[in-house]
Amino acid sequence: MRLITVGSVAFDAIETPFGKTDKIVGGAGTFISLSSSFFVKDQGIISVVGEDFPNETLLEMKQRGIDLEGLQIKLGEKTFFWSGKYHNDMNSRDTIITELNVLENFDPIVPVSYQGSDYLMLGNLSPQVQRMVIERLTKRPKLIAMDTMNFWMDIAWDELMKTLALVDLLIINDEEARQLSKEYSLVRAAKKIKELGPKYVIIKKGEHGALLFYGEHIFFAPALPLEEVFDPTGAGDTFAGGLMGYIAQTDDISYENMKRAVIAGSALASFSVEKFGTERLKEITIKDYEKRVQEFVTLTDYRINTL
Amino acid sequence: MRLITVGSVAFDAIETPFGKTDKIVGGAGTFISLSSSFFVKDQGIISVVGEDFPNETLLEMKQRGIDLEGLQIKLGEKTFFWSGKYHNDMNSRDTIITELNVLENFDPIVPVSYQGSDYLMLGNLSPQVQRMVIERLTKRPKLIAMDTMNFWMDIAWDELMKTLALVDLLIINDEEARQLSKEYSLVRAAKKIKELGPKYVIIKKGEHGALLFYGEHIFFAPALPLEEVFDPTGAGDTFAGGLMGYIAQTDDISYENMKRAVIAGSALASFSVEKFGTERLKEITIKDYEKRVQEFVTLTDYRINTL
Repeated sequence: MRLITVGSVAFDAIETPFGKTDKIVGGAGTFISLSSSFFVKDQGIISVVGEDFPNETLLEMKQRGIDLEGLQIKLGEKTFFWSGKYHNDMNSRDTIITELNVLENFDPIVPVSYQGSDYLMLGNLSPQVQRMVIERLTKRPKLIAMDTMNFWMDIAWDELMKTLALVDLLIINDEEARQLSKEYSLVRAAKKIKELGPKYVIIKKGEHGALLFYGEHIFFAPALPLEEVFDPTGAGDTFAGGLMGYIAQTDDISYENMKRAVIAGSALASFSVEKFGTERLKEITIKDYEKRVQEFVTLTDYRINTL
Repeated sequence: MRLITVGSVAFDAIETPFGKTDKIVGGAGTFISLSSSFFVKDQGIISVVGEDFPNETLLEMKQRGIDLEGLQIKLGEKTFFWSGKYHNDMNSRDTIITELNVLENFDPIVPVSYQGSDYLMLGNLSPQVQRMVIERLTKRPKLIAMDTMNFWMDIAWDELMKTLALVDLLIINDEEARQLSKEYSLVRAAKKIKELGPKYVIIKKGEHGALLFYGEHIFFAPALPLEEVFDPTGAGDTFAGGLMGYIAQTDDISYENMKRAVIAGSALASFSVEKFGTERLKEITIKDYEKRVQEFVTLTDYRINTL
């Protein structure tokens, strides 16, 4: 198996200045695996849902080559549910409801068929659960990537440190990087984070793009300037999924390829925000993706003349 | 003459989390002309100072090829003075003191030797004064660029509209673009602003880079990720000066060259913030600049493989 994704498969209810949804399918694991399926045809997911989760969505995931043996379905229990409301600037949001449900006692089971996988993407979950998956793998993947959030820094710092020490790539947003490093400058923040374990650090800045740090190198990928951001939910996970899907498919963890992977993730994330939830990601084809990548190339393309 | 800059030559007193200055030389016109002098050897400035302004600075400007015939020195009067304090994140600041002094009744005189100039950069001043300079030129420059700020949108909207209708390029920051267009999305903001007159619109996003809009084209230039931003004062003017200096020297107002000019401006602005006031700009050489431009190229450089 090329890639294993660990992450929530969940329900979201979202309100933005453009509209409102009932419960729709969301969750980090959903966005990550859906996004990586643009590149990887042989991947699995480790997660848990309740019996209220729609079979239809599971079928769709299978059709996209996402193996579900690692997805536990808990009879008599309910799926994780998050509800949030975005502010007018779309850069901040309030959480209205968080119902952990099946995630409360999530014991991530690694199916035998997942052993020997090359790449591992740990979506945002408790650092204990993330580390449990790493420890349950008989062979260390070529690259382990993880996401996390402020919440775990607040309540599980020591556990987070232990998990961070085991991963190769950390993907977090700017505010999280600042809290984790206690540095305001993102350049300094990335330096400190690299000392905690990860060789690669990616700091996402939302509409302001993303920075990739490796050794003394810095690479910057812009976000595509959009007329409208309809729903930012899942954009970060779509980015991570596209990035890891690209790396897994090309099977190349060099810095040069990591830069291409950041662009791949940025391109898919730019679609994700155009409609609610996973809707837009499910509509687009690889042709749409390739056209979007060309827009990224054009966006920063220039030739310097000598004066 | 290649380039005329119109803008304040002033005193600033600055406090940042890193330190504090007494009155030092600042002002939009100072930063713009100093920055453009990296490219243009034949330029003039239209401005006004009081008799308290140091001769030494005027000499330095002359040595950099900045003609001072358009700089009025008002005997018995005082130079414009601004004092401000930056917040910890360096993205916002409070104005402590504004003493208009000689700027209060500034009548911008265009010397005969400035007539026939190819390029005009209008630094942030009242839109009436900016328009007066345009009207006093006997030949329209090939490109007229202007900066403005929220203050003029609040108190001189109609005058601002009249001036905007006469210029080719508007250079403003994101918050100003939003206020001017009443649009949150910068893509939409730029579209609306282009309908007001300027063919080219540049929106500066500080540490998040700058966007250039022209027709249906968008170009994005990142800011260089820095460990420390010591003093952001004048960074926007340094950007504008570098940009217009580059355009004036290359005498090319095509979109392709405008992109290179945005990078030139960004490179010089990245130096400007490293020390207080104009200090860093006065230290660096064209070699330092060229090295920095190479860092910009590297920062966004990648090669897309077909999958």
